[in-house]
This record gives sequence, structure tokens and C-alpha cells, in this order.
Amino acid sequence: MTVTYEEAGVDLQAAADLSHRVQMKLGTGLFGGFVPVDDLKEYEHPVLVSSVDGIGTKTRLAASLQVTHGLGRDIVHHCVNDIAVHGATPLFFVDYLAFHRLDSSLADRLVDDIDRACSALGISLAGGETAEMPAVYREGCFDVAGAIVGVVERGGIVDGSRIRAGDALVGLPSSGPHTSGYSLIQALFGEEDLRALVPELGNTLGDALLASHRCYLGEIRQALSLGGVHGLAHITGGGIVGNLSRIMPAGLQAAVELPPLPLVFRLIQDRGVSATEMRRVFNLGIGLIAVCDRRIVERLPADWRVLGHVVETRDDANRVVLEQSRSPTSNGKEMT
Amino acid sequence: MTVTYEEAGVDLQAAADLSHRVQMKLGTGLFGGFVPVDDLKEYEHPVLVSSVDGIGTKTRLAASLQVTHGLGRDIVHHCVNDIAVHGATPLFFVDYLAFHRLDSSLADRLVDDIDRACSALGISLAGGETAEMPAVYREGCFDVAGAIVGVVERGGIVDGSRIRAGDALVGLPSSGPHTSGYSLIQALFGEEDLRALVPELGNTLGDALLASHRCYLGEIRQALSLGGVHGLAHITGGGIVGNLSRIMPAGLQAAVELPPLPLVFRLIQDRGVSATEMRRVFNLGIGLIAVCDRRIVERLPADWRVLGHVVETRDDANRVVLEQSRSPTSNGKEMT
Repeated sequence: MTVTYEEAGVDLQAAADLSHRVQMKLGTGLFGGFVPVDDLKEYEHPVLVSSVDGIGTKTRLAASLQVTHGLGRDIVHHCVNDIAVHGATPLFFVDYLAFHRLDSSLADRLVDDIDRACSALGISLAGGETAEMPAVYREGCFDVAGAIVGVVERGGIVDGSRIRAGDALVGLPSSGPHTSGYSLIQALFGEEDLRALVPELGNTLGDALLASHRCYLGEIRQALSLGGVHGLAHITGGGIVGNLSRIMPAGLQAAVELPPLPLVFRLIQDRGVSATEMRRVFNLGIGLIAVCDRRIVERLPADWRVLGHVVETRDDANRVVLEQSRSPTSNGKEMT
Repeated sequence: MTVTYEEAGVDLQAAADLSHRVQMKLGTGLFGGFVPVDDLKEYEHPVLVSSVDGIGTKTRLAASLQVTHGLGRDIVHHCVNDIAVHGATPLFFVDYLAFHRLDSSLADRLVDDIDRACSALGISLAGGETAEMPAVYREGCFDVAGAIVGVVERGGIVDGSRIRAGDALVGLPSSGPHTSGYSLIQALFGEEDLRALVPELGNTLGDALLASHRCYLGEIRQALSLGGVHGLAHITGGGIVGNLSRIMPAGLQAAVELPPLPLVFRLIQDRGVSATEMRRVFNLGIGLIAVCDRRIVERLPADWRVLGHVVETRDDANRVVLEQSRSPTSNGKEMT
């Protein structure tokens, strides 16, 4: 008896072919990826900022609807946002793709999509790893993860430490659930629900749910250039409370007035998800929150909406308090 | 009906608890990890070198034998070797852990182990992501991946381009299959085989197979300090041919005389794996190969063994040729 790796479920040739194509794209067949950083010498005290993330079970929804072309953007944008909120300029990205069975054309599409998302933001795609693990992944399943590295001047790190009472809370819309809550979503909706056209969405529910994770890099840079931005929170798993809490200093509380739920989140809630659970899992239509000097609010572009303000508190266990907007149509930039 | 995320199979509280513990360890609850790099200013032309990897289905073997304490070291050492072979000094590491069901005590153990492996090498653990995806991973399964970032002076990059005919090939032993070939291994051996003591190994087969991926950072630094090292190859999936080929310049061929197979690889081969397949999948006992000026060979520590030399060739399709050692006991440092 002769046993091959292929019989054990791993197609080394497909992996080698993919690896070759990826190398051509990356310009290296070496063990590591190279990013020259002579520019770092212009920083007085350069600090590298990194983040690693996955896009969770959004891969499964995409695979079941055969719409996988946005997943590369999802992981790149998710990672970029996580370091942009600290004031960092992204330098390079590396991806990690793992499959039940290596599907070369899917893997190629993912790498192409990642590469395009990086190029559009001026980031190098410095490397990647593709794994085939039939014994670990369920049939037809795959995982998309990645890590980003950027740089920020030490004195320019945005981490919430300058937040003070009276600061304004302003937010930018999300494009949907981004990359959070997809296990719950798939427990709620069957394929028929997902493929059905929802006239008010102008789209099928599935396509609306697969909208790419919005990238906030440009908006963050623009806001930071105004001065007076004291903290930025990327709203992902854990929702507004879980994520905004990460940057709120002791003794202060963010009082957030939730804007009306976008339709896609109302459709989810209508399937029987409690308001508490919705807040714990989803971004509820707000993908980024900035805490800033209230004097800069009116200089922000119209896309930003005022969500509340920062007050003093003795209740350090609740650094963020959410209230549903009293008027379902209030979404202007006036402070309440 | 009220549906919670937990009913959909994701335990956000366990994830938050873990995240809290990891944050305590990392000293940040922020969106990205911070690594000050003032030292980079001492480089004339700093180049960041990165690599991303996973440890494949070794996780499954470890889980089935309930010996998971070495997996953190596996991923850190795998990644460190991949940039050390280019002459880079590792700066920081980020991990990605994904589970069918989040097992907090396992996740804690993995993060502890990763943290210890990083500390031992003077590397920062700058961040990590933990995902729970019951719909994507098989029951009881998990994935361990990570990315490393290091730095090298542009002029000091080791990439094989200085390799020339007459150079010596020297190698360092592996500690076992490291992190390659575990799907095949688990197709060959059942739990009874793995738990059985193999007297010649002084260990059970399972424990021998779970030996941690050896880290070559110290040995590589020492060799580089001698000057005359023209290329370094980390032998992982793809074996000696697949990996050494990555650094061999056109027109040159590495003629490698394979040392006798260590017992653990003979036990694998004895289950019916062809010699060709063995060479394609496993490191066969050699985890690192250096291509260097033959004059430095005798100044290398005794752990290095001579494996062959570089010759000119017109056969660019075969940059590495393997031959089985004629004398099964020849393992000295004399060149043949």
C-alpha cells in the first residue's frame, strides 16, 4: 500500500500552483515579504501599530450565495480601520486563507480582491498563507483572516486618553453588519429568505448583508487633520457599547443617542432578536464613532452625524450608555 | 421567539472574558497593538520583513492526545524561522486563534504559550484575535495561525542571490515533522498507534510527533556573524526540494545528500508512504539549510552537518537534487 498526501485529503500541487500565482503577484517566492521603510526615519518616535482579524462566518454566507468577490475587501477594510482609529498610516497587509478543500479559483479570487483593496489604499500586500485542512474545516467552508501593520508618530497616537467631559460623539454610517453577527444572521434566515428581493432595500437581503465592510481611512485622516479628535472607535463585534468603552477614560461616560435602525438591522430584529442582543452583536448602522472637541463638529463633512456627548460619571462599569432616538427622523448634525 | 447569539452557537461572554485576559497580558484593550521602533532609526535603509503561517492539522493531533501545550511555540517558531532566514531580527508577533467552540482554558493556554515563546526570543506579542465559528470548523477543532514582523538592513537581506557554484550546503536537524504533514500522519496512525510507547524513541509516537517546531534564530544569527552565508532555507511543507529551490539562483543546482532518516520519519514511511511523497511532504530530519562559502563550514558549531554543495547546471527546472546517503552512518562535517 502506498499512501499519498492527496489521499489524506491535501492537494499539494494545487497549493503549489496557487502559491506560484500569488508569488508572481507579490514579486517574491521567498519565505517572508519585504517592505522598505526608509520613510520611517522621518518620524521622531515611530510606533508600529498592528491588528489581526478574521471576517468570521460571513465566508459561509458568501459561499452559500456564491457571491465571494467582496470578502477580500472585508478583511482588508476591517484591519485598516482597526489601526486607523489609533491615527496610524497602514503600511502593509498579510493574509491567511484556510480551506476544507483548496478551491484554487476561489483562492485566486480572494487574493485578487485582497490585492485590489490594498492597492486602492496604497498598502503593500506583503505575503500570505493558504492552508488546506479537510479534517479541521467543515465541507465547503473556509476562513479568511489577515494582519495589518501601520505606523504612527508616538505623540500622534489617538487612544482616547484626551477625551473630556463635554466632547461630542459623532459617527459614520456602516454599510451593513460589516463582519459581525453572521452566525446569528445565518441562524435566522434560510437561503430562500436571503435570495428574496426586498423592495425597500432595492436588493436581495443576501446581497445587502454581503455589502463590504466600509473603510474609514479617508474620513479618519480628514477628521484628524482638523485637530480636536480625542478618540476613535471601530464598531465591530461587541457593538457600540463594547467598542466605544475601549477608549473611554475612567470617570467619563459616553451618552449615545442611537439613530433609527437601518432596514437591514430591523429585518434581523424582526426575526425575534432582543434589543439587548442586537446592541451586543451589531453595529446598528454606525461603523465608526469619533469623540471630539464639539467645536470641530460643524467642520466635519455632512456624512458624520452627531450621536451624543461625553459626561462625567462615577459609574465606571458603564462607560457607554445607549438611548434610542426619541424622534425616528432625527439624523441631522445638531447636538441634542 | 427571542434568538440570542449564544443559541446561534457563539458565546460572546466567553470571548469577552478571554479578550479581557489577553488584554491584561498585552497591556491594551485598544484596537491595535503598539510597538515603539525608535531603534529603526539606527538602520540606514530599514526593511520590514513579515510572514504569516498556520500550524495546520497538528492542532487536531494535539487535541486528540490532549497535549496542546506546545502549539503556541510551534506557530511562533515557524514564523520566526521564516523571517530569520532572510537575516531579519523579529520585532513582534500577532496570533489568530479560531475554534469550533471557544474553549477558554485552551485559548488561555495557547496565548500563554505564545506569550512565553515570544518572551523567550525578546519579541513583543502585539495582539491577537480569537474567533468562534461552529458553522465553519468541525466539532472539537481549532486553528492556530499568526504573523511575525521583523527588520533587516537592506544591504543585509539574505535571499540566495549571492549563492555561487562551489558553495557548501549545511543543515541543522529538525525536532520532527515540525508543522508539516500532519494530515497525512493522522491518516496513517490511529490513536492506539500514537499512544504506544516506541522504545527506540524513548517516547510514545504521539509525543515524538508533537515535539515543538525547532527555532533556528540563535543558530542563524551565529552563522550570519561569521560572514559567508549566502542563503538560508526553512524546510517546511514542500520539503527540502520545494523550500531550498526558493533561494537557488538560475544556473545553479544544490546537490543534497540526504542523511539517514530519523526514526520518526522511518515509522511514517513504513506505513506505505513512497520515498517521493516523503520528500515532497516532510523535512526528513533537516529543518534548516544554509548555503555558504565552504571556508566557513569548519567554523560552524558541531550541530551543523554538511549536506552537499552547489554546482552549475543548465537544468533550471531542477535547482535541487536529492540523493540518499550511501553510508547510513555518514553524518560528520567532512565534505564528500
